[in-house]
Amino acid sequence: MTRLYNDPARFSDDMVDGFVAAYDRYVRRVPNASGVLRASAPRPNKVSVVIGGGSGHYPAFCGLVGPGFADGAVIGDIFTSPSAEQAYLVGKAADAGAGVLFSYGNYGGDVMNFGLAQQRLREEGIDCRTVLVTDDIASASADSRQQRRGIAGDFCVFKAAGAAADRGEPIAEVERIAGKANEWTHTLGVAFAGCTLPGRREPLFTVDTEKMELGLGIHGEPGVRTVERLSAEELAGVLVETVLRERPEAADGRAAVLLNGLGATKYEELFVVWKAVAAELAASGVELVSPEVGELVTSLDMAGCSLTLHWLDDELAGLWQAPADTPAFRRGEVPHLAPTATAATTAVGDALAAAPESPGTTVIGEPARRAAEVVRGCLAAMADVVEREESYLGDIDAVAGDGDHGRGMLRGLRAARAAADDAALGAGGALRAAGAAWADRSGGSSGVLWGALLREIGAVVGDGDLPAAATVVDAVRRGAEVVARLGGAAVGDKTMLDALVPFADALAQRVADGAELPVAWRAAAEIAHAAAEATSELRPRVGRARPLAQRSVGTPDPGAVSFALCARAAGEVLGVRG
Amino acid sequence: MTRLYNDPARFSDDMVDGFVAAYDRYVRRVPNASGVLRASAPRPNKVSVVIGGGSGHYPAFCGLVGPGFADGAVIGDIFTSPSAEQAYLVGKAADAGAGVLFSYGNYGGDVMNFGLAQQRLREEGIDCRTVLVTDDIASASADSRQQRRGIAGDFCVFKAAGAAADRGEPIAEVERIAGKANEWTHTLGVAFAGCTLPGRREPLFTVDTEKMELGLGIHGEPGVRTVERLSAEELAGVLVETVLRERPEAADGRAAVLLNGLGATKYEELFVVWKAVAAELAASGVELVSPEVGELVTSLDMAGCSLTLHWLDDELAGLWQAPADTPAFRRGEVPHLAPTATAATTAVGDALAAAPESPGTTVIGEPARRAAEVVRGCLAAMADVVEREESYLGDIDAVAGDGDHGRGMLRGLRAARAAADDAALGAGGALRAAGAAWADRSGGSSGVLWGALLREIGAVVGDGDLPAAATVVDAVRRGAEVVARLGGAAVGDKTMLDALVPFADALAQRVADGAELPVAWRAAAEIAHAAAEATSELRPRVGRARPLAQRSVGTPDPGAVSFALCARAAGEVLGVRG
Repeated sequence: MTRLYNDPARFSDDMVDGFVAAYDRYVRRVPNASGVLRASAPRPNKVSVVIGGGSGHYPAFCGLVGPGFADGAVIGDIFTSPSAEQAYLVGKAADAGAGVLFSYGNYGGDVMNFGLAQQRLREEGIDCRTVLVTDDIASASADSRQQRRGIAGDFCVFKAAGAAADRGEPIAEVERIAGKANEWTHTLGVAFAGCTLPGRREPLFTVDTEKMELGLGIHGEPGVRTVERLSAEELAGVLVETVLRERPEAADGRAAVLLNGLGATKYEELFVVWKAVAAELAASGVELVSPEVGELVTSLDMAGCSLTLHWLDDELAGLWQAPADTPAFRRGEVPHLAPTATAATTAVGDALAAAPESPGTTVIGEPARRAAEVVRGCLAAMADVVEREESYLGDIDAVAGDGDHGRGMLRGLRAARAAADDAALGAGGALRAAGAAWADRSGGSSGVLWGALLREIGAVVGDGDLPAAATVVDAVRRGAEVVARLGGAAVGDKTMLDALVPFADALAQRVADGAELPVAWRAAAEIAHAAAEATSELRPRVGRARPLAQRSVGTPDPGAVSFALCARAAGEVLGVRG
Repeated sequence: MTRLYNDPARFSDDMVDGFVAAYDRYVRRVPNASGVLRASAPRPNKVSVVIGGGSGHYPAFCGLVGPGFADGAVIGDIFTSPSAEQAYLVGKAADAGAGVLFSYGNYGGDVMNFGLAQQRLREEGIDCRTVLVTDDIASASADSRQQRRGIAGDFCVFKAAGAAADRGEPIAEVERIAGKANEWTHTLGVAFAGCTLPGRREPLFTVDTEKMELGLGIHGEPGVRTVERLSAEELAGVLVETVLRERPEAADGRAAVLLNGLGATKYEELFVVWKAVAAELAASGVELVSPEVGELVTSLDMAGCSLTLHWLDDELAGLWQAPADTPAFRRGEVPHLAPTATAATTAVGDALAAAPESPGTTVIGEPARRAAEVVRGCLAAMADVVEREESYLGDIDAVAGDGDHGRGMLRGLRAARAAADDAALGAGGALRAAGAAWADRSGGSSGVLWGALLREIGAVVGDGDLPAAATVVDAVRRGAEVVARLGGAAVGDKTMLDALVPFADALAQRVADGAELPVAWRAAAEIAHAAAEATSELRPRVGRARPLAQRSVGTPDPGAVSFALCARAAGEVLGVRG
């Protein structure tokens, strides 16, 4: 379990500070952002490779920043996507005029947040592109390759992209190479015991000590099948045989191979497995090129390992063998580059930091103040209920996900409350500030979706007196549409929409029937609650591989449940103050 | 727990094979030995630094072999000293004409086995010297510095010695520098949960999840005090404050600092702690030089970490900063050296392998054959009882030690049985062959002591007919003397001598009183058994720090218990066949 922390909510921040303190000869922190850049970046006219994702996977991601590898890393909270704002800030700071390649594992939250950041960078004229890593063969079938998750194969794809960018390739070429590297990379993992998040007592999952779970994901997503415990040789046989089946037709037989420890499965055990893996691969005619045995993409103290084959042709072999020098990985000799004067990018960071959404100097009247007070009351009540239910939300999230839903909601809500707490804001301003802060501080899928929801509602209700019931109905409906569009989901896909859409419909119906807003809201919240409970009958269809979908049947969707809880809490405030 | 293995008894062998397979660009295996050399070694007229100890501590020790670091590593079984034979073979293969420096952590088994190897190398004209690492400040007070254990400070001492040897210093200078590096290196560790040895279900020790054990050793030796669970900042404060107290007067304020993870305490947690450690050290005026945060000296999947301060002056700073390139650690740029043609040292290995203790071509008569048969029967009975009691012996060893006593005894006895199984041997020859095999295959303290005991008994009883009772009495007495001399222990020190000496005395008394050997032996075995049980009242005085001594009171000494079990088992065979 994770035992060493101060405030669990500050874990990632402390971690980044400590990482930069230890490795300031390699990296520096992007000002006002949760991310790092090479000490020598940006290098003019070089494509910048920016990687990232939730933390808890060290050396992925920040330990792989340095010459020959990544230019920067965006660092989310444990197992949680960094926010779009963070990805934007790091991408912006990394850009040296030749474009930015985002590369990260294929997870819903990362796709949304990095996607929004890419959109913003493009709007500013930066040629930003994305290559998702989809190497986990257990997470979807070969004909649904683009739905696969990214796990230890991250290392190979980032290495290819980083080496290509460092030798001066243009952005289109770096993108092509990274995409090819991903196509030629396949991983299968196995786990024996789950990790425990900072501040929690129970592991994300458990596996019978006489069993192994094949295909388990790096956040504890369940595996494809549970098998009896295997000897090291038997396990090597299963891993090699399964991964070899994915061999691309064009591959000439050379491969970089990673035997990756997930955290608590130690080097000695990995070497014992490696003896058998190397023999099996040799017997299959695979020529190993600079294999790596060790911890490359971990999952805190999870017990388990994974085998990655990264097939090589002349092009990819050259990139795999190219020198690199990062805190966690070195190969060959890398010319020493002087650190860039910090002033240069501090200026960028300062400029960004100096341009928050300004509350302006509006003097608002008493009705507007009262309306904003209701918004703040709602946010406070929502934060209270999520704090009470944090552990439950974590538990139902852990069934098919990474167990951080309650933590992420709470972090987002606290940031939202603080941001809304400016007396100069009206209701709409408070909601927009709350939404922006939520998306920025929470990260993950729920952060980006709740952030967009509040911002949309805020934009519709405006900054005048208490809005009319019909305006609130319209605001909620439009908020639901934004969430559906952003998440790429529909009702029935087992997401927060399964509570949000019935809530919006019921609210509209009751208001149309002539109910007062507080009454209509509370009735709609009860309907949302029932709808959230009913998601336990569903299986997810968006961004979830089949085994996960099966496993989550019987448990309600955490996003739907937390929406219903928040709707109910807000309803109580509306009843008192509205 | 350790889950990936084939036959637990083959774990280390498989591990070394896998390690060499993964890193053949760095190392090659010493022929017929459990150890590795740099791929480019030996380099003529360069001092060879040979490190080693039990495995389970990767990257210590074999992961630190390469230019700028060690020349070779001797690899024992998990948490078990390699045998004297192995240390000799690796030292011999490493020697390039300028001498060999052995450096390893201060543990009884390693001191005995490397000590014997050093003696043998010196007898062959190789200038072999030893520097023990004694950095663990929890294991003895500052005025008993030479009794302290070696833990993560190994890394700093080996680095200094390796860099000094690589820049061409003569053996006396390498020895002086390594000694100084050790004097200037201090470590304090903390643990939260024990590791589990391959093939075992229970961890070596457990710590309440609300507690931390300060000062715990890297094999699970108990700590100096149990404290309530601390936050990362509080723990950093305790570690820094305690280690700073040991600052040498001559230190100018510069220090290399290691924050070392023991296995299951992951990088993210270490960075969180590092943030506070770096701040505390800076506030104390310590100037950090290339600190390292990561896994440098582990304990399988033990949860915990340690803080090492390696104080620097100009001399040590230059060595610390010098380039190095090993499987697990790289710094700066190291000139590429072509691998030495394997033939060169294979010749050395082959020559060594071709000179085992030859059984000769003696044709032995029927009485001698019968005597040897008794010896083989005794060894078989001893192996049976130790196999039955392996788990119990491991449990009582785990109270103050590393829990491997049963495993080590069994491995030694099996090797002894196999070696004694040559029909051309008499009783003495069988005992001598058994002793040599036991010492070689078992490693650890028990291996070297039992090996010497059997060899001494074998030398006294000779290869004729069944020896007279008085001869056996004399043989056992002289065997006990050899064990006392080799182990540096006396009766009452809580070692196997506490059973062996009463056994030898009682055997002598009964035989003097006119008893038949089988009867006298069985009576003496019962006395040994009672004496072994009575060791639970004792606290160890040899090579054990005070907290360990206290902890083991109430538990009998595993060495004494296993001796008594073996004596009793042999007595039953003597009764039947003698």
